[in-house]
Formats: sequence, structure tokens, C-alpha cells
Amino acid sequence: MTADRLARQIRFIVEIDKLKGVFRRTYLMDRSRHENSAEHSWHLAMMALLLGEYAAERDIDVFRVIKMVLIHDLVEIETGDTFFYDQAGQADRPERERLAAERLFVLLPADQESEFRKLWEEFESRSTSEARFAAALDRLQPLLHNYHTQGAAWREHGVTAEQVISRNRHIAEGAPQLWDYAERFIRDAVEKGYLTKLNT
Amino acid sequence: MTADRLARQIRFIVEIDKLKGVFRRTYLMDRSRHENSAEHSWHLAMMALLLGEYAAERDIDVFRVIKMVLIHDLVEIETGDTFFYDQAGQADRPERERLAAERLFVLLPADQESEFRKLWEEFESRSTSEARFAAALDRLQPLLHNYHTQGAAWREHGVTAEQVISRNRHIAEGAPQLWDYAERFIRDAVEKGYLTKLNT
Repeated sequence: MTADRLARQIRFIVEIDKLKGVFRRTYLMDRSRHENSAEHSWHLAMMALLLGEYAAERDIDVFRVIKMVLIHDLVEIETGDTFFYDQAGQADRPERERLAAERLFVLLPADQESEFRKLWEEFESRSTSEARFAAALDRLQPLLHNYHTQGAAWREHGVTAEQVISRNRHIAEGAPQLWDYAERFIRDAVEKGYLTKLNT
Repeated sequence: MTADRLARQIRFIVEIDKLKGVFRRTYLMDRSRHENSAEHSWHLAMMALLLGEYAAERDIDVFRVIKMVLIHDLVEIETGDTFFYDQAGQADRPERERLAAERLFVLLPADQESEFRKLWEEFESRSTSEARFAAALDRLQPLLHNYHTQGAAWREHGVTAEQVISRNRHIAEGAPQLWDYAERFIRDAVEKGYLTKLNT
């Protein structure tokens, strides 16, 4: 029993190595290449460790936030990354990812399958303060990357300041101070020409 | 005060993006390229989440293990990765990394600087059951990558089975069952020719 359990866990650990080959539109801050979803997940976990004090609700469970951000993109092993500003791709993303989650997590022993599925659903539904905080970090991180690459991915895909604000403003639900901070550097990005000006 | 605190935290978060550009000798399991230290750290955190039940001591604090593996390689932003089987490089590694840790963690607010430094020192000294377990995962993960790439990095660097066993056997201190498991696939790797046979 134990040997089978460990074999399943190791098989899952081997399978998820593929997340390192799923590339996002975001560029690394040195612009050398696109970021992959595994290193992105690590970066979010580091942010959760450092920024927990800015969560909208006091005394959130930072460990659960970290679990969520570590696993939130695993489904992309099957679906690939869906660009955040791609409306058509975003429309059927939930269903594609739900199926991918089922197929992936079933590799695990039943107790861990259930735990991972619940964490992933919690993240997706933003139904708890931990999930809203995790989602806020997942939005803030690419904003930082865009800002520090003079808007490389924004410009490449013709993303406007209006889109950036409307698609990211729910950072405020998870971490109001971080949204204040983000709004400030979005304004600065517009002034510096990293991001197309709002229609006036 | 708060604005300065957040600015320091964000500056640190921007700085550590560089870990994604620190490459290890290990190949990804699809052999497409070398692994970087940020995605490696993510992988270890996932392993900690899944394999905590195999820790040598019962009821370890898995959250602390995850914190340690998330930050354990940050010093490589300055020092680069030191190949595990490079004896000369390993000899002065502790001192080089200690200086790098000081220079990096000082970017953080004092309370978080102190927390990160303690976690990093705990990991390095393997002074607690959590640190011994974290170190065991840090050894097991590249073994899995070598096994699943037919020993690509081992063969490239002329690593022998004796070296693999002697340098990795302290996995047993952190997770005895995982060392039993690793020993089995090291033997299998020798049989399959992924790893040079022990002198007989």
C-alpha cells in the first residue's frame, strides 16, 4: 500500500515537471525570455510570504495562500497558458481547466487528490479571503513584470490602460493597499509611454 | 513608514526575479534545457506539500519546510549555482553564500530580513527535522531528473554511482523511506547504464 502510494506521488511529481515548459506572455524582468508557469508560481509563493500583511482580511492563513499559488497553474500542463487579455480564450478557460484538473489530480492518492482539487477550486472561485489574496498576487506579479520591462508584453499585444485597470481592479478585493500601489505605477506607466493612454 | 516598507518588499520581489536566470546542471525531464533555480524551488515546494508524511520525525511543520525550500537558493542570484559534485566549488560555497545572503536579505524590512536569514541558516545547518527533510527533498529532486533523463547530467560530468550514493545518503536523515526509494532507482540506473558502475 505504502509503496503504491509513494509511486503515485512520485509519478505526479515527475508529471508536473512539464509546467516548466509552459510559457506565459510575460517577460522576465531582464527581458531575456518569456516566463514559464513554474517559476511564476514560485514568485507568487515568495510574494505571499512577504506581503501577507496587506491581505484585505486580518489573520489570513498564509500557508493556504501558498498552497493555492503553488498549484494554481498546474492545469496549464494540459491547456497551456491563456493570455489574460484574450477574451475568446478566457471565455472557455474555466471549462477546459476544470477537465484538465480532473485528469491531473486523479494521479494522486485519493486524499491528496481531494485536497488539491479543493484548493484549486477555492482559488478559481475566489470564495475565501485567502483565495482573493492569492488572486490579487497573481494579478500584481505580471503588472510588476510589465512595468519593469517598459511594458514589453502590453505593447506586443496592444493592451490599453483601460484593459489593465478593468481586468486587475479586483486586486482591491484581496489586498486594497496593493491595488493602491498598482494604480500608482499603472499611471506612471501611462506617463512613461509603456502603456497606451486611456481614451479621453 | 508603510509606504517605505512596501517599497522595500517590492524591491526585493523585483530583485529575486533574477533567480529565474540562474541555471543548474540538471536537465528538465524532457531534456529540452537546463533547469533554473526558481522553478527548481517551486518543484521542491510541491514535493514538500506531497511528501511530508515521509519525514523522519512525525508532525513536522510543513509550512516551515516550504518556506525554507522557497528561499534556499536565493543566494545563487549572486554566487550562481555550485555543481553538487564539484569538490573545489563546494569547499568555499558556505562562505560565499553567507556573504550573498547578508547582501540580499538586507533589502528587506528588518523583521523579514531576520526571518529569512534564520530560515536560510536553519536550512544550511540542517539543525532541525524540518531542515533535514527540506535538504532530503533538495537531494531527491535532481536524482529524479537524472533518472528520467537517462542520467544526462551524471554522464555529462562523469559522476559515478559511488559519488551519487555518498553525497546523497543523508537523505536518510530527513526521510528514510525516500532514501530507500532513491537507493532502488540508483541501483536501477546503474543496471540500465545511466550511471557508471561502482568499482568492484
